[in-house]
Amino acid sequence: MMRSDRKLVLFIATSLDGYIARKDGSLDWLFEIEGEGDNGYTEFYDTVDTIIMGRRTYEEILVLEPGNFPYKNKECFVFTSKSAMKDNEDVTFIDIEVGPFVEGLKKQEGNNIWIVGGGELLHAFLKAKLVDEFIITIAPTLIGKGIFLYKEMDVDTKLELKEITQFNQFVQMHYVVKDPS
Amino acid sequence: MMRSDRKLVLFIATSLDGYIARKDGSLDWLFEIEGEGDNGYTEFYDTVDTIIMGRRTYEEILVLEPGNFPYKNKECFVFTSKSAMKDNEDVTFIDIEVGPFVEGLKKQEGNNIWIVGGGELLHAFLKAKLVDEFIITIAPTLIGKGIFLYKEMDVDTKLELKEITQFNQFVQMHYVVKDPS
Repeated sequence: MMRSDRKLVLFIATSLDGYIARKDGSLDWLFEIEGEGDNGYTEFYDTVDTIIMGRRTYEEILVLEPGNFPYKNKECFVFTSKSAMKDNEDVTFIDIEVGPFVEGLKKQEGNNIWIVGGGELLHAFLKAKLVDEFIITIAPTLIGKGIFLYKEMDVDTKLELKEITQFNQFVQMHYVVKDPS
Repeated sequence: MMRSDRKLVLFIATSLDGYIARKDGSLDWLFEIEGEGDNGYTEFYDTVDTIIMGRRTYEEILVLEPGNFPYKNKECFVFTSKSAMKDNEDVTFIDIEVGPFVEGLKKQEGNNIWIVGGGELLHAFLKAKLVDEFIITIAPTLIGKGIFLYKEMDVDTKLELKEITQFNQFVQMHYVVKDPS
C-alpha cells in the first residue's frame, strides 16, 4: 500500500455550527451522539502511517490519555516553537518551518498523513495550500460557541465532494481540495 | 395536505465553513457549484404555504429580482421594527413581537412555514426555541469570512438527523430540532 502520492488529510468532527470543542476544550456534546461502530475511525486510521499535530494538541492528548499514547504504531511529528522539547519513543518534535517540512514528507514514499486537531497548524497548512483532503464528521448539535475549526481566511478553498457516509446521527463528508499547490 | 402541526423550517445553503454570503452579500461562490436539478428547491417549496423573513432579506430580494417577487403564491410576512411600512400585494409587514406571532401562526391550520434568510430573525427564533427543522445545503467551498449562519448562542440546540440527500456537489442535511417548546 506504499504510495508516493501521499495526501495530507484533515479528519475531524465538528458541531453543525463548525466548532471542534467548547471554549474550555470539552467534547461532551460530541460523545453523547449516537453513532455507528467507530464512525469510520479505523477505516481512516489504516490509510495513514504518519501523524502531525501542534504542541497544544499533543499536550491535550497526554492529559486525556495519560501513559497510553494512542498513535504508537504511526510516525508522529509534533510542531513546536519551543526548540528545547526532547523527542520520546512516541513523537519527534519539529521546530522548523512547517511548510517545507510537510512538502518534504509528501515527497517521501508512504501512506497518507493525518493532521490531528484544528488549531494554528491547520490554518498554516491551509494558507500554504498543503491540505489535500478534508474528512469532516458533523454532529447534529449547535453548540453556539467554542473553538471554531475554520479560521478566517482571505481566499476561497474550493473542494470536491468525494463521498458522504452516514454513521447513524453523524454525517461524514469526504472532500478533496481542488488544485492545492 | 393541510395540517395542524405546522413546522417552522429553516431551508438555506451555506459554505462548508458556515457562511450564507460574503460580507457584501455576494453568492458567487454558491452559484458556481455544480448541483443537480434545482437542488431540492421545488420539493421543499411545495411543503410550505407561508414564508417569513426580516426586512433586510425582503429588501435584498427586491433588488435581486426587481418587479418579480419570487414567492407570489405563498403568504409572506416581513418582520420589521419600522412601523410605517405599508403592506403590498406580495407581503404583509409585522411589527409586533416575533415569538407570539409565530406561535399564533403555528396554531393555525396550514402547511409548513419557511424562514427565509439567516439573520437576526433566525437568531430570535432559535433563542425562543421556535425553529422545528433545519434543512441545510452545504456547498463544497470554504469562503473564509462572510455572514455566518449560526450566531453565538449560550445554549446547545440538539438536532436529530432525518435525511441526507446529495445533489451532485451539494450535501443537503435535514434535521429536526429535539424538544423545541
